[in-house]
Amino acid sequence: MSSSPSPSPADPFDEDFGDLTPAVQALAASLAATAAARDRAGGTALAERQLLRQSGLLTLAIPSAFGGQQAAWPLIFRILRRLAQADSSLAHLFGFQHLQVASVLLFGSQEQQARYLGQAVEHRWFWGNAVNARDTRLTATRTPQGLEIDGIKGFCSGASDSDVLNVSVTLGPEPTDRVFAVVPTSRAGIRVHDDWDNMGQRQTDSGSVSFERVQIAHDEVLGPPGVASSPRATLRNLIGQIVLTEIYLGNALGALREAIGYLRTQTQPWPMAGVTRSEDDRMLQLRAGEMWSSLRAATALSNLANERFQQAWERGNELTAGERAALAVEVASARTQAGRVALQVTSQIFELVGARGTAARHGFDRYWRNVRVHTLHDPLDYRHQSIGAWLLAGEAPNPYGYG
Amino acid sequence: MSSSPSPSPADPFDEDFGDLTPAVQALAASLAATAAARDRAGGTALAERQLLRQSGLLTLAIPSAFGGQQAAWPLIFRILRRLAQADSSLAHLFGFQHLQVASVLLFGSQEQQARYLGQAVEHRWFWGNAVNARDTRLTATRTPQGLEIDGIKGFCSGASDSDVLNVSVTLGPEPTDRVFAVVPTSRAGIRVHDDWDNMGQRQTDSGSVSFERVQIAHDEVLGPPGVASSPRATLRNLIGQIVLTEIYLGNALGALREAIGYLRTQTQPWPMAGVTRSEDDRMLQLRAGEMWSSLRAATALSNLANERFQQAWERGNELTAGERAALAVEVASARTQAGRVALQVTSQIFELVGARGTAARHGFDRYWRNVRVHTLHDPLDYRHQSIGAWLLAGEAPNPYGYG
Amino acid sequence: MSSSPSPSPADPFDEDFGDLTPAVQALAASLAATAAARDRAGGTALAERQLLRQSGLLTLAIPSAFGGQQAAWPLIFRILRRLAQADSSLAHLFGFQHLQVASVLLFGSQEQQARYLGQAVEHRWFWGNAVNARDTRLTATRTPQGLEIDGIKGFCSGASDSDVLNVSVTLGPEPTDRVFAVVPTSRAGIRVHDDWDNMGQRQTDSGSVSFERVQIAHDEVLGPPGVASSPRATLRNLIGQIVLTEIYLGNALGALREAIGYLRTQTQPWPMAGVTRSEDDRMLQLRAGEMWSSLRAATALSNLANERFQQAWERGNELTAGERAALAVEVASARTQAGRVALQVTSQIFELVGARGTAARHGFDRYWRNVRVHTLHDPLDYRHQSIGAWLLAGEAPNPYGYG
Amino acid sequence: MSSSPSPSPADPFDEDFGDLTPAVQALAASLAATAAARDRAGGTALAERQLLRQSGLLTLAIPSAFGGQQAAWPLIFRILRRLAQADSSLAHLFGFQHLQVASVLLFGSQEQQARYLGQAVEHRWFWGNAVNARDTRLTATRTPQGLEIDGIKGFCSGASDSDVLNVSVTLGPEPTDRVFAVVPTSRAGIRVHDDWDNMGQRQTDSGSVSFERVQIAHDEVLGPPGVASSPRATLRNLIGQIVLTEIYLGNALGALREAIGYLRTQTQPWPMAGVTRSEDDRMLQLRAGEMWSSLRAATALSNLANERFQQAWERGNELTAGERAALAVEVASARTQAGRVALQVTSQIFELVGARGTAARHGFDRYWRNVRVHTLHDPLDYRHQSIGAWLLAGEAPNPYGYG
Repeated sequence: MSSSPSPSPADPFDEDFGDLTPAVQALAASLAATAAARDRAGGTALAERQLLRQSGLLTLAIPSAFGGQQAAWPLIFRILRRLAQADSSLAHLFGFQHLQVASVLLFGSQEQQARYLGQAVEHRWFWGNAVNARDTRLTATRTPQGLEIDGIKGFCSGASDSDVLNVSVTLGPEPTDRVFAVVPTSRAGIRVHDDWDNMGQRQTDSGSVSFERVQIAHDEVLGPPGVASSPRATLRNLIGQIVLTEIYLGNALGALREAIGYLRTQTQPWPMAGVTRSEDDRMLQLRAGEMWSSLRAATALSNLANERFQQAWERGNELTAGERAALAVEVASARTQAGRVALQVTSQIFELVGARGTAARHGFDRYWRNVRVHTLHDPLDYRHQSIGAWLLAGEAPNPYGYG
Repeated sequence: MSSSPSPSPADPFDEDFGDLTPAVQALAASLAATAAARDRAGGTALAERQLLRQSGLLTLAIPSAFGGQQAAWPLIFRILRRLAQADSSLAHLFGFQHLQVASVLLFGSQEQQARYLGQAVEHRWFWGNAVNARDTRLTATRTPQGLEIDGIKGFCSGASDSDVLNVSVTLGPEPTDRVFAVVPTSRAGIRVHDDWDNMGQRQTDSGSVSFERVQIAHDEVLGPPGVASSPRATLRNLIGQIVLTEIYLGNALGALREAIGYLRTQTQPWPMAGVTRSEDDRMLQLRAGEMWSSLRAATALSNLANERFQQAWERGNELTAGERAALAVEVASARTQAGRVALQVTSQIFELVGARGTAARHGFDRYWRNVRVHTLHDPLDYRHQSIGAWLLAGEAPNPYGYG
Repeated sequence: MSSSPSPSPADPFDEDFGDLTPAVQALAASLAATAAARDRAGGTALAERQLLRQSGLLTLAIPSAFGGQQAAWPLIFRILRRLAQADSSLAHLFGFQHLQVASVLLFGSQEQQARYLGQAVEHRWFWGNAVNARDTRLTATRTPQGLEIDGIKGFCSGASDSDVLNVSVTLGPEPTDRVFAVVPTSRAGIRVHDDWDNMGQRQTDSGSVSFERVQIAHDEVLGPPGVASSPRATLRNLIGQIVLTEIYLGNALGALREAIGYLRTQTQPWPMAGVTRSEDDRMLQLRAGEMWSSLRAATALSNLANERFQQAWERGNELTAGERAALAVEVASARTQAGRVALQVTSQIFELVGARGTAARHGFDRYWRNVRVHTLHDPLDYRHQSIGAWLLAGEAPNPYGYG
Repeated sequence: MSSSPSPSPADPFDEDFGDLTPAVQALAASLAATAAARDRAGGTALAERQLLRQSGLLTLAIPSAFGGQQAAWPLIFRILRRLAQADSSLAHLFGFQHLQVASVLLFGSQEQQARYLGQAVEHRWFWGNAVNARDTRLTATRTPQGLEIDGIKGFCSGASDSDVLNVSVTLGPEPTDRVFAVVPTSRAGIRVHDDWDNMGQRQTDSGSVSFERVQIAHDEVLGPPGVASSPRATLRNLIGQIVLTEIYLGNALGALREAIGYLRTQTQPWPMAGVTRSEDDRMLQLRAGEMWSSLRAATALSNLANERFQQAWERGNELTAGERAALAVEVASARTQAGRVALQVTSQIFELVGARGTAARHGFDRYWRNVRVHTLHDPLDYRHQSIGAWLLAGEAPNPYGYG
């Protein structure tokens, strides 16, 4: 059952990704080797982005008809989780790559899918985005050839060093008035700003992109069917949610794994513990057990939600609004659990490593900083409230908002 | 995917049990109708035990070769969880029935399996037990015909009104010196005491059974292979753990389900909420969402652990000690999560129902009382510590203790 | 420093009440001796109410000018907390007695104070109430002599076996339209119903009182100044809040104290603990330490809030709306902390006592049931939200609502 | 009651320090202005250390007989808490200054007190230390003139730029074999290393100090009475504990205060909140209220413990071991509560500020990093266990260990 991995006796954190295992593990190891140093440095991780391109994993979600691997979503999400253990920033960019591919699959015409996804395979495109819906500073006017867009978008993860951008802009007040377009990052008038300096997710380049009279052709605007055509189309938001979930889980798993490794080799036993090895300290065993069991529960729910997502994906246009709502609630539950557990675990691991483990060179605080930053873009409390609205009052999460 | 059920849009609490759905739902409905009243009354639920016998569900775990349904364990455990929503005491007895059947399958010879499980089908046996390992007041002496046992055992759930008992006694200091025997409850010298009066699990009849010169024949003692012959044999303990897990989850799900029903029909909106229906109160939605998502995570982990248990069961004697340890940790994680969540949810539901919902006639406190009692027999803290010992120091849980 | 009591090395739960110590401790001991049995029985505790009357403690809040002890409020509240350790229901009635006395002091004219409080001393009145503001079924019409009231009130704690009642009714839409009257319980048309059967606070007789054409004379209606005349008058609500706080704390302290006593004398050590006495089990020590420190914090805040209340009380009509708001926030903080900690502690004590401690005869679950019931009448979440509204937006809690 | 300050309606975070208010507030404001930038820079805060010297606050604990202010400890600790709101590192150094002064008062002879504390006033000494008891790499040999010490000590907060050091070394296996000496930092053979680069408390210079054949004269060794002479002498440890407590509280208060200021001026309301100002968002109000009330409780307990400390200090040699134990437990309870609440609050404030508040320039994560680092030197779990050992088994915390 590849989608519900279980801890092995050998290394409880190890997982199997089938044929992709060597590629995934090699990439993860490369990223991990420099992750703490790059966290301190910030900026664009050009070399590591190149590793991602070379790994062949950026095309996982692309159908085989267009040259991709057409991997199942649960597998893609597990790989994302594994990469996030090593490097939360690069994992984010990896996840958003597949979100942009999914946008083409869900919103684009058959012709657009063939064009953009074929090129993505051929040229090993790394996708960026400028689609943050809360930022309304980007405007569009219709032109004979298509659209002209002006303004700026913030939180444009992965735009730096990208080959192509998903750009979204709203042409009117209705959900259906929002359009997505695929535009080369090199297009005239686009400037990607190097203005991301954050306490976490430091190499996601989630800064701003400005647009000055940027021309977009009719056939670069995705559709039909476009963004709001069916319950199926609104699956895009759920991929975004799942990417967050897996980043939380990856950070928590990575933090606990690294803490245990440190504890076994570095941590001196506490005098009151009465033991000669820290791993025999019952108090630390208690806390490790608490962390592990809550992580296992969050992981199991994430696996389950991801499987349900795949089922919904495969149903295509048969998917009903009610089914979409129930799936959205499950995805939301997985995300809130992952978020809560990850905030707790990434803070609590310090009790395993002890005072000396707080030296800056270890960078053990980056896990908490990453999770703390990433749990704010779509607040967990409002997600819980939305789950409750469905449960108590039968209200579906808004598929065009943060549901 | 029968073993990983998901909430339906219609009723998030509804589940499907395949062909058994009508039987399960009818039994659950019958039990629920009188559960609050019987919780107040305590004592032996003779009529409801009869319903269980008549439901045909007591033979689920018995192989088809002996006339049983040979249902997969994950299905049995889900049915247990469903029954525990309705009536935690009777669900406990239901779960322990299958634990005794499993004991015969794991410890007994082929001949014993055929004899006891065939009769169990034929006579609709309800199984009790007198096996509590911590209670060492029961002693045995060898006789030419087998054993003579004397003394008393406490916490003998389900012994009242039982047809047959599993009895265990220790003949020496080693795990292999413990024996299990199958004995008719009516055997001379056995007295089942009506001395269970507890704050929770009130109709489990978990009182004491005394034995005065009770004769046990050689071929009533289960084995070979007996109790400590292989990793496979030690799966018995894990069934016991899973039964607890499902009782916790069932109580939590039942409590939340009943609270939501009450809220929708009875709870007056709080003045400060500014709404006309309690189900639209955003504070209550928040709390309901928090409860739901934590319950979903605990449930998903339980489902996953149960599937892994089934895989281990099917491996039979191929199961290694290392695999058994990893499984035991997963089962333990599922139990601690379920326990924590259930303690929280069964207390927090009162925030949904409000002050008037505390009237004694509703009996809404029984869910918390049931969980509180049942989380103490094998303390969650020590279970967490044992998980941590495996994670930090590679120690396997003791398969003959509480692991 | 009578208002900030500290644990003594001899018995950390012991407290000193100055000259009142013997009376308080004797009363507490008498109540404790039968509390578990009376919790099971429910109903009106006539004998124990008589003990309260005889203790002389019902007149603590009455000024010495009228024959009372004129004790400071922090002392009264500490006595209430002590009584709640022994018997939460009777402590509730004790607390509400002083709330009614305070109503006369805050709302009544000098003449009314002298009349009612003088009689209260002389006849050892036990006060009941019918003032629940959320219950609007009681109506009044003006008559030449005063008011005629009809209808019913729920949650009338202590009305059974009371000598006199505070009754409130609303004559119009404004806070100032609410009136309080003092009426003998024996007045024609008043019927106290024996309809309280709850899962907690079982001997508070918090059932309903019906009124059929009950005549109230002009000078029985408290005022001037009446209910909404000044910040000072609105201190009444805060006494109500503090009574709840102390009941939470008392239950938590009582639960922990009784659990520790049981652990020391009854609880068998857990096998995995590797100790011969349960009190040496480090896991239990950890949990006891966690409970103790959170209880100490909640208690310290309650003590501080009560001192501030006394200062506000002494300021009389000098008290400003802003000061009242800040005090109300402090009182609310004390209550939410006490509520949270008490819910946790009264559930967690079972980990100290172990499985055998759940026998019904011990009644250890009554502490949780009492707290659970009493934390619902004014939900903690809305109280926290109100604190936050003050902190973030500078909004004062509504002094006529639940602030 | 100056030692139990309460929030004012004007600014709930404001406090009064009597005559010292202007000096304290000016110093706090100066430190706050550059705290985020200096947190990024790390290293020794020479200019800010000079501000501390000039503030006159380094001599607060010195008796007036020697020229100091002889301030009560609760006042000193409240000032420490206030400074920690602004700058946790400098507050730490401020706190440790008084810890060293106390060492002279508790361990030193009358003559030594007069000599060292008189000079401390005259020369505005800033005190460093090399006393970490867990680090046993420093050794001493007796010489005719006194001691010669060799080796290294870690975690020597405040040694950089110090005028004088407390140095401790152990001459034998008993608590009484430990000696404290006062040595000028400039003494031959002492080298203060600039090797502190940590994820938190970044300007505490808590690096190492090495000693090469450093000569210490007989009369530089504090005593009689020395370190282990009486319960009174062991009050030193408790000051160390209280310094930690106040640093936790200061960080939590500072974080919440800064977050609220940011929320009011910068945070955009969340779309689902349906409000136009973030401060009116009920979800945020709920969370702010939860944080506030838990902080108030932790603060109240800290105030209470500090008052009890002062009482014990004033008892001098009358203080018994039992009283010392009860005080130590109260101090420990205050510290664990403060630690838990501070870890929670410094992480949760991000929910008030939102995603944009995570920009690195704000440095809002420094509060959590500071608390996280500082809660590890003496683990909270073992502190709770020690409280529980006292409560369950009557064991006094070890006055020479971490009790």
